Amino acid sequence: MAQGILQAYREEIEGGLSRALEGDAPLRSLLRYHIGLEDEHGTPTRPAGKFLRPSLVLFVAEQLAGSLETALPSAVGLELIHGFSLIHDDIQDRDRVRRGRPAVWTICGIEQAINAGDLMHALAISTALGSSPSAADCLIRATQEMIEGQCRDLEFERRDITAEDYVAMIDRKTGALLRCAFELGGIASGVNGRVRSTLAGLGGSVGRAFQIQDDLLGIWGEDDVLGKATGSDIRRRKKTLPIVLLFERAVGEDEAALKRLYGGEEAAEGGIADDDVAWVVGRLDALDVRAACDTLVRGYLNEAIDRLRRLPFSDDGRSRMEELIGFLARRER
Amino acid sequence: MAQGILQAYREEIEGGLSRALEGDAPLRSLLRYHIGLEDEHGTPTRPAGKFLRPSLVLFVAEQLAGSLETALPSAVGLELIHGFSLIHDDIQDRDRVRRGRPAVWTICGIEQAINAGDLMHALAISTALGSSPSAADCLIRATQEMIEGQCRDLEFERRDITAEDYVAMIDRKTGALLRCAFELGGIASGVNGRVRSTLAGLGGSVGRAFQIQDDLLGIWGEDDVLGKATGSDIRRRKKTLPIVLLFERAVGEDEAALKRLYGGEEAAEGGIADDDVAWVVGRLDALDVRAACDTLVRGYLNEAIDRLRRLPFSDDGRSRMEELIGFLARRER
Repeated sequence: MAQGILQAYREEIEGGLSRALEGDAPLRSLLRYHIGLEDEHGTPTRPAGKFLRPSLVLFVAEQLAGSLETALPSAVGLELIHGFSLIHDDIQDRDRVRRGRPAVWTICGIEQAINAGDLMHALAISTALGSSPSAADCLIRATQEMIEGQCRDLEFERRDITAEDYVAMIDRKTGALLRCAFELGGIASGVNGRVRSTLAGLGGSVGRAFQIQDDLLGIWGEDDVLGKATGSDIRRRKKTLPIVLLFERAVGEDEAALKRLYGGEEAAEGGIADDDVAWVVGRLDALDVRAACDTLVRGYLNEAIDRLRRLPFSDDGRSRMEELIGFLARRER
Repeated sequence: MAQGILQAYREEIEGGLSRALEGDAPLRSLLRYHIGLEDEHGTPTRPAGKFLRPSLVLFVAEQLAGSLETALPSAVGLELIHGFSLIHDDIQDRDRVRRGRPAVWTICGIEQAINAGDLMHALAISTALGSSPSAADCLIRATQEMIEGQCRDLEFERRDITAEDYVAMIDRKTGALLRCAFELGGIASGVNGRVRSTLAGLGGSVGRAFQIQDDLLGIWGEDDVLGKATGSDIRRRKKTLPIVLLFERAVGEDEAALKRLYGGEEAAEGGIADDDVAWVVGRLDALDVRAACDTLVRGYLNEAIDRLRRLPFSDDGRSRMEELIGFLARRER
């Protein structure tokens, strides 16, 4: 069997990222650090990231007989957009750790970290223009949707939300770049119409499954695997899907206690205490929320596999994509 | 005599900005507020900004027989990049007032203001792509330079700098977008080679004059005209050109007192007290720093006029541009 999708293009992607971020101009070293091309002292390292999004671009381009050379700048641009969003997200959430290492803002301060994200954003688009104007346009539109999703996510901290609100938010915050990954592969191959919309649909299904899996890891993931504290999403009152479903299911005393923990402006000032985090995890288990989320993830993955079958991929390509989809459902980080 | 450059294209520019920022999607109303298209309650208003940069794009395009319709998206994109940079700058500098109104971050908080800037950045580039890929490329490169300039500017707060460092910084922070304004006008007209590099040179001279004039206003500007507190650049220890020159000229007790006020990590924590601000202003006057800055501004404006004469503008166009250059040298905001 051929190499897995996440292994097949790492060399090209790392090379492209290195070229996009090379030089001594201000902030470049910080950007290389963020992507994992350097450690804090400027010594070259191998990046720890999965490079899921650019790998998907290149895989789809290859399957649809597009040119990898044409696709690569847009794949690298997409990874840089993802990287820029993480720099700014970590400031917004005051997350001190990213992939097991100090977040950019903890190294250079919030002010310069805003600049670092801004620069990575601009470099992303200028890199993607190297593929084609339509690739750059697709990437910018996805970036706009992603930012709108991040805006909604922050708003959610201050009001009650439904599972529907939540899915609409992740379709933007996470889904936009994953849909874009599949579309960029299609753009590099010159496909349009039904194939392109099926690609976007596949990306949408993968995006939902991926984000809900991420939410599960944010509560039940292991510290050392994930590189950040288990339960941290509860501690910070993030309204991820498990919490939204818990609110829908809780009644009586449970409901009242949850409202005290999550509700109101006053509560939002500090984090949730360790004892209360443990109580929330207990209620999630008791009310079968984890199982419900697992079912949703599997549903979106099945939807993805269904869409995958309608794409003109090779048999080998289809089975490699199915393998990746299975990996995303089982991943621990 | 024909209409001034800053008046001639306002309608097209406001229309283009309105279209770029229309709709109910998250953050759009906040972006319209920032540009001055709406007040805090969403009621339409006329923007107070000069729209210097987009006016220059359209004026240059007109002079070089380019199409205004082709140039407009890039002109609007350039103004949006300027707007994005101001949203993030105000966060970084903790400036609470922008053009006499509350800064975006004071309304929606730092977290959402980061998103608002990010969204305006992305919208800027997708708007500019409506002119041409090369216009978008020019704008993105200028954006990168501008961000690098902002990075240097923040660094300057923490170390000694020379007048040379200062000019290298403003060539990026302010100069990049002004050079880009002239270049975008050229791109919309299909000019290349010598004309394009003369356009960039003219933008560079105007940029230096404009920024040093801004520095003068940051110390000697009137409160009600500028919409921000006079002396605020001193209070915040901004190392603008007057301060850099003051450091070069001060000796003995003056030098020691300045070093105490501006030097070291400890000093950088709080603002400079009102009495000390008044003392700094006194020393600037005593050591003829204001006159020296005025001389520099006039020098760069003369350089600009010299470059202007080498461009194939109409006689009327040349005199309108000279009028604008004169206005920039005398402006009070």
